[in-house]
Amino acid sequence: MRQSGFPVTLTTDFGYNDEYVGVLKGVILSINKGIPIVDLTHGIESQDIKQASDIIWNNFRYFPDGTVHLCVVDPEVGMSRRIIVLQVETHYFVGPDNGIFTHLLTSPETIEAYVVENRKLFLREISNTFHGRDIMAPVAARLASGMSITTVGPRIPRESCVIIGVKEPVLQRNGIHGEIINIDKFGNIRTNITRLYLDKIELGEKPRITLKSYEIELVHGSYGDIHDNLPAAIINSNGALEICVNRGNAARLLKVEKGERVFVRGNNRGWHEAEVLV
Amino acid sequence: MRQSGFPVTLTTDFGYNDEYVGVLKGVILSINKGIPIVDLTHGIESQDIKQASDIIWNNFRYFPDGTVHLCVVDPEVGMSRRIIVLQVETHYFVGPDNGIFTHLLTSPETIEAYVVENRKLFLREISNTFHGRDIMAPVAARLASGMSITTVGPRIPRESCVIIGVKEPVLQRNGIHGEIINIDKFGNIRTNITRLYLDKIELGEKPRITLKSYEIELVHGSYGDIHDNLPAAIINSNGALEICVNRGNAARLLKVEKGERVFVRGNNRGWHEAEVLV
Amino acid sequence: MRQSGFPVTLTTDFGYNDEYVGVLKGVILSINKGIPIVDLTHGIESQDIKQASDIIWNNFRYFPDGTVHLCVVDPEVGMSRRIIVLQVETHYFVGPDNGIFTHLLTSPETIEAYVVENRKLFLREISNTFHGRDIMAPVAARLASGMSITTVGPRIPRESCVIIGVKEPVLQRNGIHGEIINIDKFGNIRTNITRLYLDKIELGEKPRITLKSYEIELVHGSYGDIHDNLPAAIINSNGALEICVNRGNAARLLKVEKGERVFVRGNNRGWHEAEVLV
Repeated sequence: MRQSGFPVTLTTDFGYNDEYVGVLKGVILSINKGIPIVDLTHGIESQDIKQASDIIWNNFRYFPDGTVHLCVVDPEVGMSRRIIVLQVETHYFVGPDNGIFTHLLTSPETIEAYVVENRKLFLREISNTFHGRDIMAPVAARLASGMSITTVGPRIPRESCVIIGVKEPVLQRNGIHGEIINIDKFGNIRTNITRLYLDKIELGEKPRITLKSYEIELVHGSYGDIHDNLPAAIINSNGALEICVNRGNAARLLKVEKGERVFVRGNNRGWHEAEVLV
Repeated sequence: MRQSGFPVTLTTDFGYNDEYVGVLKGVILSINKGIPIVDLTHGIESQDIKQASDIIWNNFRYFPDGTVHLCVVDPEVGMSRRIIVLQVETHYFVGPDNGIFTHLLTSPETIEAYVVENRKLFLREISNTFHGRDIMAPVAARLASGMSITTVGPRIPRESCVIIGVKEPVLQRNGIHGEIINIDKFGNIRTNITRLYLDKIELGEKPRITLKSYEIELVHGSYGDIHDNLPAAIINSNGALEICVNRGNAARLLKVEKGERVFVRGNNRGWHEAEVLV
Repeated sequence: MRQSGFPVTLTTDFGYNDEYVGVLKGVILSINKGIPIVDLTHGIESQDIKQASDIIWNNFRYFPDGTVHLCVVDPEVGMSRRIIVLQVETHYFVGPDNGIFTHLLTSPETIEAYVVENRKLFLREISNTFHGRDIMAPVAARLASGMSITTVGPRIPRESCVIIGVKEPVLQRNGIHGEIINIDKFGNIRTNITRLYLDKIELGEKPRITLKSYEIELVHGSYGDIHDNLPAAIINSNGALEICVNRGNAARLLKVEKGERVFVRGNNRGWHEAEVLV
């Protein structure tokens, strides 16, 4: 009676209070009750395509082969934007062609792209405002049930898919200029400066990070290697520079928000401006 | 080892912070580990039976045949209110007999109703304050595992079930008087004015909606057909009139709350009071 | 294709906004797509090991035999704290050895304890800051798939596991001194005074509870037996004393927070201090 399916993950800006997420799951289970459904997050800020793109990219590999990632941050729903499916190795990604897959598309991964046009896969009635429910969820559920990606519609060049301007860190002679891209529930401050960038500069013996007027030390290790109540930078579990406070809330302590600039000094010379937090 | 089950959906006012929802799921899986469980929403406002009734009614059809909808907004738990099971086609609904199924019961659907009395189905110990866990979850899990509805207790007349006053829109010579029934995470303003009502009046060429002192245009299409930062009305994905702002938060812009009155003008004559938002 | 698994429950302080919970589930499903995963709660306050311990203890029995309870409140992640697995009857508990299992460990249950050391069970790359993902989730998933607990690492004495100071109520000649341990979404005030303690004192005919300057009546029954808008105490669904207001928010009405002291008077004599709330 139950047909086994591959997992479907959900990444949306729907939040947790409304019934929208539940309805997506109803549509998926209506096609195949054997699909395990996982909320990756519904905490994307309303219409923040960039944040969704980053989270999808950083986490999809923790899911099993064959997983279908349904990604619905869709401010242009009902307009002319396309709906696409990408295949990266054995993973599928279903979402609007609005830049939500920017990190994937600008990565060196081998990607096949298809545009969703086969109306036979959709719900019978298509609303103007909820294509996640009416189009994307049924397509995702069918892919998770083993349907070939070629059934969704014509193949398109990867280069034709929309990518948006994601601020990459800027490498300069004396260091890396990056920015805060997210603040988590613990107040940990995530930056867009990844190990990839850190490896490109000559870090001094005690590398220091500047955020606002604070000078922060880069610690090799875990939260526990940080003095209580003092901010420090670590390499987080996604391989990115993160500023945190052991047993405290760094964002609240430093009074920073998304978008604030972060600088990593590349060597020990020529660095006076920053004030040391005491 | 795993017995396949039909899905169980959960609709409660428990919120997301406490362990109550998790415990319901534990009870369900204790009866049948093969039941897929879906949170429809736990964001119902505390004890808002009316909101729960509306959400259940608008969304149950997106779930597969055989789904059991467990609905726990239960301010009278431990008192004399009955616990009932309704069957609508192949869907089952389990909840307190307090009006939570008002929209279902006042619909033209064919409904069979039963009162839950068979104590053999309950947990061994029944608390005074959590019948969702002790009575309703085990009954729902057994229905989802194929138990006949006749096992729960005696059949009762549908008319004996409690319905509560749900404010229907009022049709008048010159238009429809409705109200705001919900505001979603995006600030979209949902009204109780459905297509059913809109079809009953002669809408002018450019139908206009009045909310507070604002006059708002009805747009045929999607969010994208609305000017940025200007409110407009659309027919939403449930077929109801919704006031929204493309890429903005309508509820915040218009400073409105649940219960605020909304008026749809039926023709172009005799309409001066409303101020146009600039 | 799908291998059946036992359920895994998740109890964390991750909240609902970030992707951390979703990633845990990805790791679990990567090991076995047939594992039902249940969020017990992610609403534990950041780093509140005591609250987690209480919730795990009070609720694990509502889950089926064989369930694995993955508990990640882990402020010392990356430091020297051990990761342990406990077995209590047919239930398994995986988490850091930081006191998160204090209620279990100080209970009369028969418990076997193991330390997690078998690196073959972990993800290939271990971060410094997210052992929930890299170590605990894969171990939990394997236990839920039938792996023997002896595979995780050496058995350790139960007494060697960390327990933290959990404030037990204090019995005195004239009553029980307890405290508020949690406030739920409805504003219901949970105390650490359980039936076990109440049974030890001679309660007067109309037992009274003191909280701040309020004197509150103990009601035998359910919320419905309480006068609207007046606080009263009941025995809640976990067998603990809880102060609530029928159809109201007790915590807001009484302006109390976690940690506030609660006193249950043991008899009718010698009790003048408390003011009666009108």
